[in-house]
Amino acid sequence: MSYKEMTKEQLQAEREKIAAEYEKVKSMGLNLDMSRGKPNTEQLDISMEMIDTLARTHKLVGEEGVDCRNYGVLDGIVEAKRLLSAMIECPIDNIIIYGNSSLNVMYDTVARSMTHGVMGSTPWAKLDKVKFLCPVPGYDRHFAITEFFGIEMINIPMTNEGPDMDMVEDLVSKDAAIKGIWCVPKYSNPSGITYSDETVRRFANLKPAAEDFRIYWDNAYCIHHLYEDRQEHILEILEECAKAGNPDMVFKFCSTSKVTFPGSGIAAISASKANLDFIRKQMAVQTIGHDKLNQLRHVRFFGDFNGMLEHMKRHADIIRPKFEAVLETLDKELGGLDIAAWTKPNGGYFISLDTLDGCAKKVVSMCKDAGVIMTAAGATYPYGKDPHDSNIRIAPTYPSTEELKQACEVFVTCVKLASLDKLIAEI
Amino acid sequence: MSYKEMTKEQLQAEREKIAAEYEKVKSMGLNLDMSRGKPNTEQLDISMEMIDTLARTHKLVGEEGVDCRNYGVLDGIVEAKRLLSAMIECPIDNIIIYGNSSLNVMYDTVARSMTHGVMGSTPWAKLDKVKFLCPVPGYDRHFAITEFFGIEMINIPMTNEGPDMDMVEDLVSKDAAIKGIWCVPKYSNPSGITYSDETVRRFANLKPAAEDFRIYWDNAYCIHHLYEDRQEHILEILEECAKAGNPDMVFKFCSTSKVTFPGSGIAAISASKANLDFIRKQMAVQTIGHDKLNQLRHVRFFGDFNGMLEHMKRHADIIRPKFEAVLETLDKELGGLDIAAWTKPNGGYFISLDTLDGCAKKVVSMCKDAGVIMTAAGATYPYGKDPHDSNIRIAPTYPSTEELKQACEVFVTCVKLASLDKLIAEI
Repeated sequence: MSYKEMTKEQLQAEREKIAAEYEKVKSMGLNLDMSRGKPNTEQLDISMEMIDTLARTHKLVGEEGVDCRNYGVLDGIVEAKRLLSAMIECPIDNIIIYGNSSLNVMYDTVARSMTHGVMGSTPWAKLDKVKFLCPVPGYDRHFAITEFFGIEMINIPMTNEGPDMDMVEDLVSKDAAIKGIWCVPKYSNPSGITYSDETVRRFANLKPAAEDFRIYWDNAYCIHHLYEDRQEHILEILEECAKAGNPDMVFKFCSTSKVTFPGSGIAAISASKANLDFIRKQMAVQTIGHDKLNQLRHVRFFGDFNGMLEHMKRHADIIRPKFEAVLETLDKELGGLDIAAWTKPNGGYFISLDTLDGCAKKVVSMCKDAGVIMTAAGATYPYGKDPHDSNIRIAPTYPSTEELKQACEVFVTCVKLASLDKLIAEI
Repeated sequence: MSYKEMTKEQLQAEREKIAAEYEKVKSMGLNLDMSRGKPNTEQLDISMEMIDTLARTHKLVGEEGVDCRNYGVLDGIVEAKRLLSAMIECPIDNIIIYGNSSLNVMYDTVARSMTHGVMGSTPWAKLDKVKFLCPVPGYDRHFAITEFFGIEMINIPMTNEGPDMDMVEDLVSKDAAIKGIWCVPKYSNPSGITYSDETVRRFANLKPAAEDFRIYWDNAYCIHHLYEDRQEHILEILEECAKAGNPDMVFKFCSTSKVTFPGSGIAAISASKANLDFIRKQMAVQTIGHDKLNQLRHVRFFGDFNGMLEHMKRHADIIRPKFEAVLETLDKELGGLDIAAWTKPNGGYFISLDTLDGCAKKVVSMCKDAGVIMTAAGATYPYGKDPHDSNIRIAPTYPSTEELKQACEVFVTCVKLASLDKLIAEI
């Protein structure tokens, strides 16, 4: 029976029951973590052969003749470019291979814009005001970068097709202080939404007031399908931008952090030649080059992009049951109560759940008291401020399925209890 | 006989002879490179076991229990901190381990100061003028960083004990726009000079006008001795600064680029706790962490710092004969001619040679025409401008000893010819 249809007495009776359940789980001394999108040990194990790859051969010369052990090759060995350009769906000439973290590439991209502008535009540090659009709920580490540089962030609601494009089009066409928008276009963090073709086309056809406006297209989950028969696809934004006469308007980012080893992967940026030429000028000052042995290690391990796709199926086989376990508990325990809505993603790393307004912080805090760490409520919004205090990001990948089931039981108990308190107070 | 004591006729006769030699080497179609401080293949080979290190064990958990394959540990695993803090001579709490490049750490350090200041000072991007002192001759990639950020560079002459400290003390005490000085304190690039104890103490006792003045202490060659019995030592600057009441005044940098594999090493910054705390705030936004597997790979390969020192002896055995081959040719061919002076370093990667004023560019250009690539003349000075056009950096490590001898023969021929032209014109 929906909580919303209950009388005060029914709510109070239910509250008594749930509170007892909560006290019980609290006494269990759990220590579980559903807070970060972190691969589990079994996932790491499937990449172990990569560690051995270079040891086995000892041929560390790349196909263009470069000794990958030595200095040289600023923007990545050609075989790594080929692999990641297939992954990110761009021509091989439109990619630069970086170090171990796409987050670092994004940070660098914003940092460079602060001090040197974008393709020669005024450095943002010299402007009175710089703003970014932030589809919400979104990725906390994106928002942390723009906050760190004092960039004003504007919330853009997400629909089932991606960000509210009416709002995006309106804002970017009017306000030259808006220099970017953070996007996770596929299996988005945290909602799992994949941008529709129309959304991508509307992005490509934006008419920004600022010449140095860019779409920050973080394709973190481009090959992270959970179901082979429910794979989602997005239009290739670089090509759509070129078609629309906006060839320079997008930076695409990707990495193998959740493909091989987080922290020991390789990352890339993809953009127009004009953008990449500008970036290379900075890179030549910043570094003599990134870790080519690790690039080679990845290439040799996968063989080619098909090898990478096969590898991703193994990841999916490991984490799919975890997603299903969470969803099963949510369906079973919260279904029909009218106190929460959640996503059922076909890929990515998260389930996004919305509680009744004003309950998220309380739920997360109650979970913590019962030994279950959730992503901080509000983290999915700029400045950590969820205006409805309702969104909670669930990260099912790291705990074992057994732990996950326990953690979910605690979580749904907390959602019920916080909702009951709210409904009783309001009745 | 010294060229300077020759009559015009003697000079012209000598010129004829040397010009013929030059034409002869030019016709040989050489293709040799003495331009960059790049380890040779034999040096890379001695680290090959490092590639296998992790493959052999498959135990990828660090001593503090962290799975080095996964996310986590922002500032380096403790065993990597222990290894590099021994290398850079600092307490283990005063180090942060970075990615593959100390150049990148230095770039980041300046870039962060531009946008966020130093320990809370005004961001340099908001100041009208920022200046750096640049001991010359020095490292071109240092100067490239400060130039990239529009920082004005002021030449400081090097003496045999380090930078001219009278000038340094005078300038930093008077001018609050001076925010830093680039130093390679041991076996400096390119002159091979090691700062004397007095120089280090005077550095530590500076009284800068700018609160955010820092010494950028690039200890790139800290363990890169060429001779076991002629090892040079420097006072530990962090400790000297603390003693002098300036605990926050220095950033130290190091990496294993020329210890294991250039591009696949690990790098570090060492500084006071207050500095590192400020840096960590940025790092937490910039990255989830650096490559811990590569940190572990280094630790397991060396075992401990003694292992690293033993490894450096093998490097020295490989490159010492190359330095000696160059010096032998210089002595034999240029000794007594009064047209060049050069350094005889006990460590590091370079020999620095000064021609007669106004000859360096010509020598480098003539070398190029004869198939021998030298570091561009002027590269050892800010903006590529050597006021005397006399300094040339010789990098003996990469070519084979045979190639090196050939390249040196070409080089000395060019030095002689350029000097003769100058002396004849002036007579």
